[in-house]
Amino acid sequence: MTKRSVIKFGGTSVGDFSKIKNIAKYLANRANKGEELVVVVSAMGKTTDELLKNVDLLSKEPDQHDLALLLTTGEQQTISYLAIALKELDVKAKAMTGFQAGIKTKGHYMKSKILEVDNEAFEKAFCSNKVVVVAGFQGMNADGELTTLGRGGSDTTAVAIASSLETSCEIYTDVAGVYGTDPRLYPAKRIDVVSFEEMMEMSALGAGVLETRSVEIAKNYHVPIYLGQTLSDERGTWVMPQKDILEKKAVTGVALDKDMHYVTFSYPENDATLLKQLFNLLEKEEINIDMISQIVNEDGLQLSFTMKDTDTVELKHIFDTLHKEFTELNYVVKSDYVKVSVIGSGMRDMSGVASKVFMTLLENDIEFYQVTTSEISISYVVDRTNGVLAVEKLCEAFGL
Amino acid sequence: MTKRSVIKFGGTSVGDFSKIKNIAKYLANRANKGEELVVVVSAMGKTTDELLKNVDLLSKEPDQHDLALLLTTGEQQTISYLAIALKELDVKAKAMTGFQAGIKTKGHYMKSKILEVDNEAFEKAFCSNKVVVVAGFQGMNADGELTTLGRGGSDTTAVAIASSLETSCEIYTDVAGVYGTDPRLYPAKRIDVVSFEEMMEMSALGAGVLETRSVEIAKNYHVPIYLGQTLSDERGTWVMPQKDILEKKAVTGVALDKDMHYVTFSYPENDATLLKQLFNLLEKEEINIDMISQIVNEDGLQLSFTMKDTDTVELKHIFDTLHKEFTELNYVVKSDYVKVSVIGSGMRDMSGVASKVFMTLLENDIEFYQVTTSEISISYVVDRTNGVLAVEKLCEAFGL
Repeated sequence: MTKRSVIKFGGTSVGDFSKIKNIAKYLANRANKGEELVVVVSAMGKTTDELLKNVDLLSKEPDQHDLALLLTTGEQQTISYLAIALKELDVKAKAMTGFQAGIKTKGHYMKSKILEVDNEAFEKAFCSNKVVVVAGFQGMNADGELTTLGRGGSDTTAVAIASSLETSCEIYTDVAGVYGTDPRLYPAKRIDVVSFEEMMEMSALGAGVLETRSVEIAKNYHVPIYLGQTLSDERGTWVMPQKDILEKKAVTGVALDKDMHYVTFSYPENDATLLKQLFNLLEKEEINIDMISQIVNEDGLQLSFTMKDTDTVELKHIFDTLHKEFTELNYVVKSDYVKVSVIGSGMRDMSGVASKVFMTLLENDIEFYQVTTSEISISYVVDRTNGVLAVEKLCEAFGL
Repeated sequence: MTKRSVIKFGGTSVGDFSKIKNIAKYLANRANKGEELVVVVSAMGKTTDELLKNVDLLSKEPDQHDLALLLTTGEQQTISYLAIALKELDVKAKAMTGFQAGIKTKGHYMKSKILEVDNEAFEKAFCSNKVVVVAGFQGMNADGELTTLGRGGSDTTAVAIASSLETSCEIYTDVAGVYGTDPRLYPAKRIDVVSFEEMMEMSALGAGVLETRSVEIAKNYHVPIYLGQTLSDERGTWVMPQKDILEKKAVTGVALDKDMHYVTFSYPENDATLLKQLFNLLEKEEINIDMISQIVNEDGLQLSFTMKDTDTVELKHIFDTLHKEFTELNYVVKSDYVKVSVIGSGMRDMSGVASKVFMTLLENDIEFYQVTTSEISISYVVDRTNGVLAVEKLCEAFGL
C-alpha cells in the first residue's frame, strides 16, 4: 500500500519565499518516492500579527467573525505560494483552504473546534497523484462562515486530518522535538518519546510545543505525532500512547506558563447565584480557567483562578454583565505571577515527587501562592521574577 | 419601499486604514437614513500587485488556479477591515467573500465570468438590518474552486449584484465620472450621461473607466450605473440605455489604448487548418483579439491582430502548441503601437465623422497602420509616440 503522510510546517518554517522553495524541494523528494502527502501550513512568519496590528487601527474590540475572516487569508496565501513552488518543480499539487479540505467546525469563531474532516477532497487529489496543500488553523461552520481554530490551531488541523486518513502526523518547527523544559530556560535533554497525557499537560501548562487541543485529538484517535526540526536530520520526539512507551520516568518535564493571569473576584456576601452565573458565563465565553480557589469569610466571598492572558476582553465582558446585577462585585487581574509545573506519567506509580518539588522550592527561597495537582502533574503559582529560577532548580533536581 | 443601493469602491478608495474609516462613516450615514446597502470593495491599494510580485519569486508561469486562490485574499482582507470599521460606528454589518455572497462563476480561473448571483444571503442580511460588505472580483465555480474575474472585476461584481437586486449601481473611484478622454491626456469636459454602448466601446478601447464586461451586464440587465468620485459632492456621470438619453452628440469620447500588443503570425503557405486551429486556441484561452487583418500573397499567409498585453503568456502557449505541427510558423509581438478610437452613438445618424478623423490625423502628420470601424466607433493603430498627440487633436476637432 502507498504510504500516506500528513506533514505540518509552522509559520517560521514558511517565513519567507526561499524557505517555501526549500520546503517544496523536500516535499518533491518525498512525493517522487511515491508517498501520498497532505501538507498543512500556517500563515507566513508574522503575517497573523501584522493583520491584527492593522485591526488595532480600526477597533479595539473587533467582531470575532470579522477577525476570523481576516486571519484565514494568511494561510490561504501560504498554500497558494507553496502550490506554485511545488508546480515549479513539476510536482502536481492541489491547494485547499480549510473549508475546501472539508474541515467543519463549531463553536466560537476565533477558537472553533473541528467537528469532522470530510476527506473526499484528499482521496480525489491522491487519485490524480497530487500533493495536497491545506491551510491550517481554519475551517467552516454549519452557517457557512469561515472560522479559525485559535492560535496554534494548524497543529490541530494536521492531527485531525491524520486521524481521518488513519495515519501518523509529522509536525516540523524550528526546534527539534520536545525538551525536559523550554531550552531557552534551562539546557534540558531532548525527550525521545513522551505520552499523550504528559504532552497534554505540558501544552496546557505552558511548555508551548503543541496545542493541547491537537494532542487531545491525537490521543482520542490514536494518532502518533512526530515532532521534528524543519529540514533537519536531527532526531525529534515521538508522542504516542502511554502503553506503547516501555521505559517510564517519574518526571518527564518542567513547564513554565508566563502567559497567564491570576484573577480574583470578590463580593461582600457568599452568593451562590453569583457563582453560578459566573461559571455559566465563563463556559459560554469558552474561557478555560484553572487552579480555582474559593475563600468565604467575614469579608464575604473571594474566588481566584488562573486563565490565559488572551481572554481578558471576554473576562471584562463577563464582569460588565455581572456587575449590572451585582453592583458591589469587584475583580482584580494580576499578571505578575507565573505557573511552574512538574509533569510525568510515572508520578502515578512513584511516590516522593510532590515532596521533592516542595523541598526544592523551599531550599531556594521561592515563595508560592497556590498549588494544584493532577494525576500526572503538580503546579505552583510563583512570582514572575522567580519563574526561571524555579524551572532551573526543578530541572536539576529531577535530572532533566 | 426601502431604498436599496449597491455601492462599489475601488482599490485606491480603500487604499489605507483612514480611508476605510472615512468610507465607513459615509456608509453609516446612509445606512442610518434607512437605506439597504450592499458595498462591494476591491483589494486595498497595491495589494494585488504586491501578491503578484511575491509569486514572481517562486515561478514565472504560475498556475492560474493558485493565482486566483492567492489574489482573492486581497478583497477578503478589505471586507474584514470595512466590517470592523462599520461595527466600530455601531452599524450592523455582514462581510461576505464572493462565494458567500452567492457569486457563481464559470470559465478560466483568472478571468472567470459571473454565471449567477444567488441573493439569498443579501436578503437574510437585510432582514437583520445589516450593511452587506462583499469582496469584489471573485466567486466560486461549479467545482468549488475560488476564482477571480480578472482585473477590474469588482465593477462586474457590483453590477451583477445590482442586477440581481433590481436596482442601480454606484461606482466610486478617485475620478469624478467619465471625461471626453483620459484627463491626464487632454483637459476634456466631463460627460453627464453616456449610453451603455458608448461606455462599452470606451472601456474596450482603453478609456479604462469601467470594465467592458461590467457595462455589458449593466446593458443586458438594464442596470443604470452612476460613476462618481469617492466621498465627493462633485457631479459624476450616469451610464444608461441610449433610448433614455435625450440629447445625442456625434462624438462622445476619444480613447487611447496603450496596453495592447500588435501580433503577426506568418506561415509560408495559406493553410486553412492552421487558421482554424489558431482561432480555436484563441477562443479556448479566452484571448480577445481585435482589428484582425489577413494578407495572402506569394510569401504565404500573414495574420495580424491586436490583443491585451496581459495575454502574452497564453499567446506563447498557443504558438508552442501550433509550432509542433506547423514547424515553419513564426510570430512577432509588437508593443510600439497604440490604438486611438473615436466613439459616439451619434455616428449612426450623423455623417462626416470618419472623414473628420482621417483629416485630423493627416493634417498632423500622424501615420496609421490599420483602421476598423464599428457602428459607434472608429479605431486607428498609430505609433506609440503619436498616441497622445492624436488624442489631443481629435478632442480639439470634436470640441470635447
